Amino acid sequence: MDIASVIGVLLGASLLAIAIMIAPGASFGAFVDYPSMMVVIGGSLAAALICFPLKSFLNTIRVAKNVFFNKQQDLSELIEQLVSLAETARRDGLLALEGRLEEISDPFIVLGIQMAADGTRPEVIEDIMRTEMDAVATRHRNGKSVVDQMGRFAPAFGMIGTLMGLVIMLGNMDDPAAIGPGMAVALITTLYGAICANLLFLPFAEKLGFINKHELLGMEITVRGIMGISRATIRG
Amino acid sequence: MDIASVIGVLLGASLLAIAIMIAPGASFGAFVDYPSMMVVIGGSLAAALICFPLKSFLNTIRVAKNVFFNKQQDLSELIEQLVSLAETARRDGLLALEGRLEEISDPFIVLGIQMAADGTRPEVIEDIMRTEMDAVATRHRNGKSVVDQMGRFAPAFGMIGTLMGLVIMLGNMDDPAAIGPGMAVALITTLYGAICANLLFLPFAEKLGFINKHELLGMEITVRGIMGISRATIRG
Amino acid sequence: MDIASVIGVLLGASLLAIAIMIAPGASFGAFVDYPSMMVVIGGSLAAALICFPLKSFLNTIRVAKNVFFNKQQDLSELIEQLVSLAETARRDGLLALEGRLEEISDPFIVLGIQMAADGTRPEVIEDIMRTEMDAVATRHRNGKSVVDQMGRFAPAFGMIGTLMGLVIMLGNMDDPAAIGPGMAVALITTLYGAICANLLFLPFAEKLGFINKHELLGMEITVRGIMGISRATIRG
Amino acid sequence: MDIASVIGVLLGASLLAIAIMIAPGASFGAFVDYPSMMVVIGGSLAAALICFPLKSFLNTIRVAKNVFFNKQQDLSELIEQLVSLAETARRDGLLALEGRLEEISDPFIVLGIQMAADGTRPEVIEDIMRTEMDAVATRHRNGKSVVDQMGRFAPAFGMIGTLMGLVIMLGNMDDPAAIGPGMAVALITTLYGAICANLLFLPFAEKLGFINKHELLGMEITVRGIMGISRATIRG
Amino acid sequence: MDIASVIGVLLGASLLAIAIMIAPGASFGAFVDYPSMMVVIGGSLAAALICFPLKSFLNTIRVAKNVFFNKQQDLSELIEQLVSLAETARRDGLLALEGRLEEISDPFIVLGIQMAADGTRPEVIEDIMRTEMDAVATRHRNGKSVVDQMGRFAPAFGMIGTLMGLVIMLGNMDDPAAIGPGMAVALITTLYGAICANLLFLPFAEKLGFINKHELLGMEITVRGIMGISRATIRG
Repeated sequence: MDIASVIGVLLGASLLAIAIMIAPGASFGAFVDYPSMMVVIGGSLAAALICFPLKSFLNTIRVAKNVFFNKQQDLSELIEQLVSLAETARRDGLLALEGRLEEISDPFIVLGIQMAADGTRPEVIEDIMRTEMDAVATRHRNGKSVVDQMGRFAPAFGMIGTLMGLVIMLGNMDDPAAIGPGMAVALITTLYGAICANLLFLPFAEKLGFINKHELLGMEITVRGIMGISRATIRG
Repeated sequence: MDIASVIGVLLGASLLAIAIMIAPGASFGAFVDYPSMMVVIGGSLAAALICFPLKSFLNTIRVAKNVFFNKQQDLSELIEQLVSLAETARRDGLLALEGRLEEISDPFIVLGIQMAADGTRPEVIEDIMRTEMDAVATRHRNGKSVVDQMGRFAPAFGMIGTLMGLVIMLGNMDDPAAIGPGMAVALITTLYGAICANLLFLPFAEKLGFINKHELLGMEITVRGIMGISRATIRG
Repeated sequence: MDIASVIGVLLGASLLAIAIMIAPGASFGAFVDYPSMMVVIGGSLAAALICFPLKSFLNTIRVAKNVFFNKQQDLSELIEQLVSLAETARRDGLLALEGRLEEISDPFIVLGIQMAADGTRPEVIEDIMRTEMDAVATRHRNGKSVVDQMGRFAPAFGMIGTLMGLVIMLGNMDDPAAIGPGMAVALITTLYGAICANLLFLPFAEKLGFINKHELLGMEITVRGIMGISRATIRG
Repeated sequence: MDIASVIGVLLGASLLAIAIMIAPGASFGAFVDYPSMMVVIGGSLAAALICFPLKSFLNTIRVAKNVFFNKQQDLSELIEQLVSLAETARRDGLLALEGRLEEISDPFIVLGIQMAADGTRPEVIEDIMRTEMDAVATRHRNGKSVVDQMGRFAPAFGMIGTLMGLVIMLGNMDDPAAIGPGMAVALITTLYGAICANLLFLPFAEKLGFINKHELLGMEITVRGIMGISRATIRG
Repeated sequence: MDIASVIGVLLGASLLAIAIMIAPGASFGAFVDYPSMMVVIGGSLAAALICFPLKSFLNTIRVAKNVFFNKQQDLSELIEQLVSLAETARRDGLLALEGRLEEISDPFIVLGIQMAADGTRPEVIEDIMRTEMDAVATRHRNGKSVVDQMGRFAPAFGMIGTLMGLVIMLGNMDDPAAIGPGMAVALITTLYGAICANLLFLPFAEKLGFINKHELLGMEITVRGIMGISRATIRG
């Protein structure tokens, strides 16, 4: 559970709610408009659906939950674990690594250690592990792209909704008293677009990029560690 | 048929239609203005025509239909097919590949296999295939550029149309009752520009870039596969 | 004569003219304002003059006419011509190339063939031709930069003119009937800036970039062809 | 103490204060609105919190004070110090370096000299020093990113606050006299966002980037100097 | 004296002045507002002061005068001079170069020729000249950065001033007749920001970049020429 992102979303939402509550003459009801939500969220989703193949789009949901549920890997712990595995291999041979597979939770390390224990050639291990790394990187990069695009389309559809509201309002100006509320409703779509982009999509995309970079760094360390184990033991 | 893009366009269009239908006092008629369409779509086309040679511009139409009718190549199937061709070549010789040409539908693979079966030298095969790849990449990149530029010019011509409408309206303010509807009509051009850019051109350009990258990846795999077949058999 | 650019400019201009003609209550006169033209076009020119040395600025005029009068070189014809020259050189020796100089229209090929026929060493030929290529590339790139900058400054001076108009108008609000027309005139400058940028400068810059890339590709092919001719004959 | 940044902030703040004081009919009170501050500063913080892990976010505070309290390292002094250390090493041997450790204040030089004096192999020294450099670079880059993002989110939350104020105002237009002050309050949020971004966050991020580049240049010189000391003495 | 930049600034300023003079009902007085100048120019300076160390900031003034007083070096003359120096060295030896030092005005060439005449080793000459080149490049790049940043901050402080003016005006709407002039004054700050950025800072930054590139090209040619002189004579 990534506490900073949770705090961020809650803090942002509370601040906006408090600002509405303490403003004289304001009510939450004035800020709820379902057609505006439909235009902003639906429109951003529609534009993102056009941009990407369905598979990439659906995959984003899996990637996006990382914003909140990603537990940042501790790189020093990872290095310690790899060093300890290397010692086992040096002392008791590559086969002994199999006995330690159960204590490893990261499936990427398990993949590498399993291959090393089976005596797979180091070049083959590296090739397979790097292919897996590339696949993870592509999946994450696409996930980030989808959220990035939604952060780019949300304000655009906010503006589209406001323009639609203004066109409707300006075409029906018989009742001057209705102009104010009409404009208020029209502006809500722009407000939704700005909030979606700046409190959700853009920060989420930024965080996904950060997580992705950290995870790939961990995988790079793992690949190098396992290559070291596999090569040293063979040469030894 | 790329289902995500079709869903995206339909979803986006329906959402905007529903938003108009449920808005009190709105009618579809208020959102139809032919001169505005002419300025936004015609203007974006005109600007794009200036940007590119006629051939690149016309070619875009062919490339653009990929947004909807592109069937994403299954890369694992492609690899399987290349492996199976390699086995045939190893078992029965390069000449045997000719017997399998009929079952291949991708003309790029046919090109490579034909040359391999004819005993063309691997370097020459690679040269010819890479030249073809470059030509495809350039054609697609230009196609994407045209759509990108249209997504950039559409909002600009939307603004140009609105400015023209405002100049006309502000010069004829004898009848105050006409101000509202006049502004409504003026704003419709900006609305058209925003919708064209954000629901059509920009997502289409994004998708074309995605398809292009995927197709080039498939071609790269094909080139490497056929080089492998051609080299192995010669050395063997 | 590049037909696409000519069509583009005519199409764009006609569309805007038609839009004015069919708008009720509009007249061309309402869209002509000489001080606004002066601010937008003069201001963009002034800013571009500051950006570049006078020589680069004047050179742009020569480069810019390429947008309309550039005849795109046919690369297959170019390759055919080089192949035919190579055959002459192989059959009849380098000296025979001189007899064919008259039929070549491209001065860059003439430059290379002349040197090859004179028996200049291949390295020297390449050096001289590449220096010429660099000079052409720099000249074109600077030309494109000037037009690019004008496309960037035109909307800015459009806004400057509108702000000036608004300041004048807002300072003289004795006659409420003059407010509408005053704002109309103020907005015309923004309109001019947007049209100059989006129908002229930005597409022209884009086209110049395209032409430049194509021309350099042709020169690269020429250099390689002439190097081939010169080297093969020497070795032979 | 970096005098330019201190002068900059004080100058900017005084200018805005003076502009308010000399404007007829203005009072400082009209520019203080706590809910607007809450939305702009709180919102930017919330968005930045979502973007980064908590550790990177908290680390920014440590990095950000560099804007004011960074004393730019004098590179010629640094080079002199390294030259003098090299002379000691050449004259009296690497061990003699230990005697000079006390006079060095920069912990990065101390780290390197300590290792050189201990006879650590040059490659190992370089490896350890470069790893430390990378860690510093990453820490600073993340710090700059956080401030950059806040400079990007502040104007966005300024606009969000203004839109909220407008929606509230437009929904309560019974009293026409309240419209002006209502809009004034709504605009203050945009003003806060613009000031935070342009007088604080964006210049701070720029400065942090500048400091970071200078510090890494100093570290690079240090690494090369110590490598020279360590290698020369070993070879000698 | 760079005539293009001088013409550009004078042309731009005259155009704006003429536009004011010929506008009916306009007076120069309406466009002069000292607090607005203070906010735009002072604010941009303040923000730029925060961005850079004081030394880089002060150095900009020296670099910025290049926009007007830079005499573009004639590269063919430079090459001729280097060729003539090379001939002297070849005919009369390196020592003879000392006799020609007086006729050289460019201190960078003097530096190189002095070292060559003194018999300094070519590698050492190159090292020293390139270090000098790097120092010049960094100084110029920083100078351009400062002007670039001011071009970015000027419109932002223009908007800040306008927002401040609007907040003051909207809070004092007792006298409807004051609204127009109040808004006029508020808009002047945005106008100043746009003029400063688009007629001064941004074109100046562009020009500084151009000058910098040209000067470094001249220095590169000089370094290569002097290396040639020094190497040829030693080998000879």
